[in-house]
Amino acid sequence: MTDTPNQAALAARYGDGHIPAAGPWSPVIDALLAHRSVRAYRPDPLPEGTLETLVAAAQSAATSSNLQTWSVVAVTDPARKARLAAVANGQKHIEQCPLFLVWIADLSRTARLAEAEGRTLEGLPYLETFLVAALDAGLAAQNATVAAESLGLSTVYIGALRNDVRAVAAELDLPPGAVGVFGLCVGHADPAQPAEVKPRLPQPAILHHERYDSCGEEAHRAAYDSALGAFSARNEMSAYRWTERVLARLGSTRALHGRDGLKGALRALGFPLR
Amino acid sequence: MTDTPNQAALAARYGDGHIPAAGPWSPVIDALLAHRSVRAYRPDPLPEGTLETLVAAAQSAATSSNLQTWSVVAVTDPARKARLAAVANGQKHIEQCPLFLVWIADLSRTARLAEAEGRTLEGLPYLETFLVAALDAGLAAQNATVAAESLGLSTVYIGALRNDVRAVAAELDLPPGAVGVFGLCVGHADPAQPAEVKPRLPQPAILHHERYDSCGEEAHRAAYDSALGAFSARNEMSAYRWTERVLARLGSTRALHGRDGLKGALRALGFPLR
Repeated sequence: MTDTPNQAALAARYGDGHIPAAGPWSPVIDALLAHRSVRAYRPDPLPEGTLETLVAAAQSAATSSNLQTWSVVAVTDPARKARLAAVANGQKHIEQCPLFLVWIADLSRTARLAEAEGRTLEGLPYLETFLVAALDAGLAAQNATVAAESLGLSTVYIGALRNDVRAVAAELDLPPGAVGVFGLCVGHADPAQPAEVKPRLPQPAILHHERYDSCGEEAHRAAYDSALGAFSARNEMSAYRWTERVLARLGSTRALHGRDGLKGALRALGFPLR
Repeated sequence: MTDTPNQAALAARYGDGHIPAAGPWSPVIDALLAHRSVRAYRPDPLPEGTLETLVAAAQSAATSSNLQTWSVVAVTDPARKARLAAVANGQKHIEQCPLFLVWIADLSRTARLAEAEGRTLEGLPYLETFLVAALDAGLAAQNATVAAESLGLSTVYIGALRNDVRAVAAELDLPPGAVGVFGLCVGHADPAQPAEVKPRLPQPAILHHERYDSCGEEAHRAAYDSALGAFSARNEMSAYRWTERVLARLGSTRALHGRDGLKGALRALGFPLR
């Protein structure tokens, strides 16, 4: 059943057997459902003013109590991108993309404000306040991604910058109280390496009504293992089940690539996480 | 200079004196820039299927290593919304809105997967893995917000659920390893209480090139204090400067409304944050 545009978009996102009930729809929602992360870029630079438009979209996202505790560093210098790629297990798309954005959980600006006003901010050292900053950076970055895709550009998030947040902070000259929480590649997708929409878990596996209910989860996982296996076979010349990927990614501390040291590294960068 | 649509949208977001250079633009970007958080809702229910469409948009956001470590609980029961509003300092829009979404950082599904497979996940207890789950919930929720606004609906994020994450977990029957990181009101804005686009810090205050640079920050803050004061005078029958709001919000531990206990509460809910 892929006879209408929203049915086709939902079928690509969930696989034919697990399409949610048809609801209201818009061209924006079509664009959101068409998202795919892109890991191969053409070297072409972005049109002038693109960065400023993306940041305006990012700043338009909600921000907790309007605190605006995030910043973004735009990196285009090839040598700097190469050094950041080295932190992220050598992901080559960081070097390929014309614009690499590093999203900063930034309590340093607030600390400078307090210092200029001769005040102390008791709220700054808490885990809660770091979380506010990190989440607001996430909301902002997602708006930038949606904006970029609306301009025909592509993106991919780079969580692997957290392999070594101290190295990233040194590279970007971050002050204490500022940390790069993730990166975002922005550029023109290489048309020679198209990316297919990746299916997700059936909606009932993640959507709960009134109270959490994991009933039926095993069946959803089996269905998804099969859907993702088929996706892998088509796109990656392999056929990994989702279950195996999760076990590989979280099974061992070694697979965290240094991110098991994040708490200590954050403390060193000025986040006591009280 | 508000002669073209993007100039008008940028002027509303930054104030007339601080409009970034004109760049490429799209209808989606117009929609993103028009965002405003809405705290007054009509009681009208949402069209059938709206929830499923919003969740499909949310699941289309990027997710770290495709782990999908988030869930969402849809709350429409008035009594439950009232109890959740009580956690959030009595914010009345939680009761008013027809749909209240609680976004869950959810490592419990992954833990159940490992248990079913007879495996141990060494990566689960780390701060890093909690952060992955919380950030992915944020990206998902922002897509839901963009989707909702494209359907003529409005939203507001509710960070104050973190005042007492244990109460929220009990209310929603969350298993260990799952925590509500924030809520989101969804509904039809009350036309009797229109919300104006809120200006943000001048772009150079948050956007850095190649390396972090806080030069000129004091001037940006002064300009923004003035812009936000004017906004407040027009919309809130007061005229608070941004500086005063930041100092009030983060100045005292008391102003965190219990969120200073987040770390201990997370541990009690099954997040060791190693």
